[in-house]
Amino acid sequence: MQNVLYKKDFQAVKEGITYPKGVKAAGVKCGIRFNRKDLALIYSEKLTNARGTFTTNKFKAAPLVVTEKNLSLSGGKLQAVLINSGIANACTGEKGLKDAWDTVNYISEGLKINKEYVAVTSTGKIGEFLPMKKISAGLKEAISKLRASGGAEAAEAILTTDTKKKEIAVNFKLNGQEVRIGGMAKGSGMIHPNMATMLGFITSDISIKGELLQEALQEVVEKSFNMISVDGDTSTNDMVLVMANGLADNKIVDKKGADYYKFLKALQYVAKYLAKCIAKDGEGATKMIEVEVQNAVSFWEAKKVAKAVINSPLVKTAIFGKDPNWGRILAAVGYSGAEVMPDKVDLYLKEKIVENGQPLEFSRQELHKYLESSDEIKIIIDLKMGEVNTTAWGCDLTYDYVKINTKYN
Amino acid sequence: MQNVLYKKDFQAVKEGITYPKGVKAAGVKCGIRFNRKDLALIYSEKLTNARGTFTTNKFKAAPLVVTEKNLSLSGGKLQAVLINSGIANACTGEKGLKDAWDTVNYISEGLKINKEYVAVTSTGKIGEFLPMKKISAGLKEAISKLRASGGAEAAEAILTTDTKKKEIAVNFKLNGQEVRIGGMAKGSGMIHPNMATMLGFITSDISIKGELLQEALQEVVEKSFNMISVDGDTSTNDMVLVMANGLADNKIVDKKGADYYKFLKALQYVAKYLAKCIAKDGEGATKMIEVEVQNAVSFWEAKKVAKAVINSPLVKTAIFGKDPNWGRILAAVGYSGAEVMPDKVDLYLKEKIVENGQPLEFSRQELHKYLESSDEIKIIIDLKMGEVNTTAWGCDLTYDYVKINTKYN
Repeated sequence: MQNVLYKKDFQAVKEGITYPKGVKAAGVKCGIRFNRKDLALIYSEKLTNARGTFTTNKFKAAPLVVTEKNLSLSGGKLQAVLINSGIANACTGEKGLKDAWDTVNYISEGLKINKEYVAVTSTGKIGEFLPMKKISAGLKEAISKLRASGGAEAAEAILTTDTKKKEIAVNFKLNGQEVRIGGMAKGSGMIHPNMATMLGFITSDISIKGELLQEALQEVVEKSFNMISVDGDTSTNDMVLVMANGLADNKIVDKKGADYYKFLKALQYVAKYLAKCIAKDGEGATKMIEVEVQNAVSFWEAKKVAKAVINSPLVKTAIFGKDPNWGRILAAVGYSGAEVMPDKVDLYLKEKIVENGQPLEFSRQELHKYLESSDEIKIIIDLKMGEVNTTAWGCDLTYDYVKINTKYN
Repeated sequence: MQNVLYKKDFQAVKEGITYPKGVKAAGVKCGIRFNRKDLALIYSEKLTNARGTFTTNKFKAAPLVVTEKNLSLSGGKLQAVLINSGIANACTGEKGLKDAWDTVNYISEGLKINKEYVAVTSTGKIGEFLPMKKISAGLKEAISKLRASGGAEAAEAILTTDTKKKEIAVNFKLNGQEVRIGGMAKGSGMIHPNMATMLGFITSDISIKGELLQEALQEVVEKSFNMISVDGDTSTNDMVLVMANGLADNKIVDKKGADYYKFLKALQYVAKYLAKCIAKDGEGATKMIEVEVQNAVSFWEAKKVAKAVINSPLVKTAIFGKDPNWGRILAAVGYSGAEVMPDKVDLYLKEKIVENGQPLEFSRQELHKYLESSDEIKIIIDLKMGEVNTTAWGCDLTYDYVKINTKYN
C-alpha cells in the first residue's frame, strides 16, 4: 500500500471512513448545493456501539437534538448516519425538528433498520429549512450507492467552505487480530469547538464496551478537536461520532488494560490528524499555527494560554505578515486568564527569543525568512510553573478570511 | 459656542482635556515616531484627587506599575501625567521599570512637584526600551509649551494607529457653580479592555472626595471602556485616569446625593463618548456596531452576550459585507456562556427579524440597503428573561484590519 506511515503501535494508511470491516458509505448530489456533492451516508453492516459529543452552543441544531435522543433511546447503538451540507437546520424551531425526525424515518425505511439506530446531522446556513423532497430522493440514491469504497465521496459531500477532504485511517493489532479505525471530518469556518467539535466521524471494527468507547472519545476530543480554533466562533452544529461494530473479532476490550490504551493511542492519532486538517484548512488560511504550552500547573491552565494565543487576531495577522511580533504573543499569554508569572515565561519561535519575559537578541530577518518559508509555524511557550504540556492548533488571519465571510451567501 | 449638544443635566462642548479650570497640556514631537507628535503632558495647577483603573493583563507594562505605586504613595493625588506613543515599555524588565522611574524624576524636577504626584504611561510597540534622551528633551519642550489651549495637541500626541483625535468636554451646575469635565482617549487596535481600558484621561475641576471619585470611575468604566472591543486582544498598557482639582469651588461632593449622581451622569457621558470614539476608529473599521442586550437576568449575563456578538469575526465580516446574516448573531448569543433560552430570543436589525429564536419574514434587500447606507449598525437582542439592559460597541472586520496588522512595524 502506498504512503504508509509507520508509527510505533499502529500504522496510518491512506483510507477513510470505510476502512474498517463492514462499513460502507456513499456521497451524492441531492441538489441543496449547486452542482456539488451535499449528502453523505455511512452504514455499518453490523450494529455498532456508538458515542457522540455535541456542541455546547445553546442554539443546538435540530439534527443534534434528534441524534442525542436516538443515542439515548438505543442505549448507545447506531447503524447509519446521514449528513447533509449546505443547510444547518439550526434555529428552525418545530418544523426543523420535524424535518430531522422525518429524515430519520426515511433512513429507517430505506435501510430497514430501527429508527433509534439512525443519526442525522447537517452543516451550512443557519435558519433555513431542509428541502425534504431533495433529501428523500438523494437518500434513495445514496442507499443504492453504498459500498466499501465510498468513503472518499462521503468525505467530499460533507464539506462546505473547506478546500480539501479530511480523511485518515489506521490499523493495529490486538492479540494478533487486526483492528481498523477510519475517520473523516469537515470544518473551515465558525471553528472554535467547545466540548464538541465540528463534524467528525470515526468508525472502527474494534470490539469494545460502550462505556470505554465513551471515555476514550471524551479524552481524545478534549485534546484534539477542542484544541483547534479558526475564528473563535463555536458552531450550533458541532458533533463528533465514533462507531465500533466489533467485526475485527478481537477479544472484547472491557477494561482499561494494554488493549484499551493501544486503541486510545490510535484513536488519538486519528482525532488529532483530523483536527489539524481542519486548522490547516481554516478559511483563507495560508499557514497552520501550532502552539505548544509547556510546564503549566494543569491541563486547563495550559489550554487557556494555548487557546488565547491561537485566537488572537493580532498574532494571526502577524504570522500572515511574516512578522515575528513576539510582543503580541506575550500579550495574549497575559490576558488568557491563566496563572502566569510574567518574569518566568520563555518563548520559542524557531529559536528561543524571549527568556524570563524579556526579549533575547535575535535576527528579525532570519525569523522573517522562517515565517515566509514555512507552512506550519510552531510557537512554544514555556511557563516554567508546573509539569503539564498541551498543544493547540489554528491558522493565520488573512484577506481571504474576510473575503470568504463577506461574500458567503 | 458652536456645536453645543444640550443634554438634560449637562451640556457637551467641543473641548478636551484642558477644559476644566487650572488644567494645562501640551503635545510635542520628541522623535520616537517619525515626524509625528508622540509626547503629551497634562498638568493641573492645583493638586488633584486622582484615581485609575489598570489592565488585567499579567504582562502589565512598567509605566502602569509605576503609576499605580505613585497613586498608592500619594494617597490618590496627582498633579502631572506624561504619555508617550510609539513604544509601550512593556516586557522590558528591570530596565523598563528604571526608565519609567527616571521619567517620573525628570517630570518632578521639571515641574517642581513631588515625585509621587506624577503618573506616566506609554503606548506602542511591546518589548522596546524608551529612548530616554529623546524623552528628556521632549519633556522640557512640553513643559515650556504647557497651556490651557494645549488639549488638542495632547490628544493628537497619544495616538498610534488611530485615525482621529478623541476628545470631549461637558459642563453642568452644582448649586449654581459651573463644574467642568474634559477627556481624551486613544485606541484603535489591541482593543478588548478588561476592568481597565485603553488610554483614557479625564480631568475635572469638581471638588469631590477621593473615595467617591473612585466609585464613580469604576462604575463608569465598566459600562463604557470595558464594553468596547475591536479585536478581543487586551493590551498590556490599558489605563484610565481621572483627576479632579476642585477649582470649580462647588460645595465638596462627599456623599452619594443628587450632586454625586449629576456628576456621575456627566462622567458617564464623557466615558461613553470616548469609548464609542475608539470603537468607531477601530483598525480598518468602516462601521461602528452597537449591540444592545435587553431583559437579561443580570448585568454580567447581558455583558457576556453583548461581548460575544461584538467580538464574533463572523458577525463582524457579515456587517462589512452588508449581509444581514442573523444566524451568525444567534450563534454568538448561543456560545456566549450566558444563560439564554433559545426559544425566547428576539433579534432586531433595523426591524424585528427573529422572534422566539426563529426567523420572521423580512426583505433581505431592504436590510442590505440599511447596512450599506448606515455608518452605525444597531443590533438589539431581547433575551426576555429579566430586566437588565446593557450596550457594547465594536466595529466591522475588514481587509484593512488585516492590512494594518500585517504591515505594522
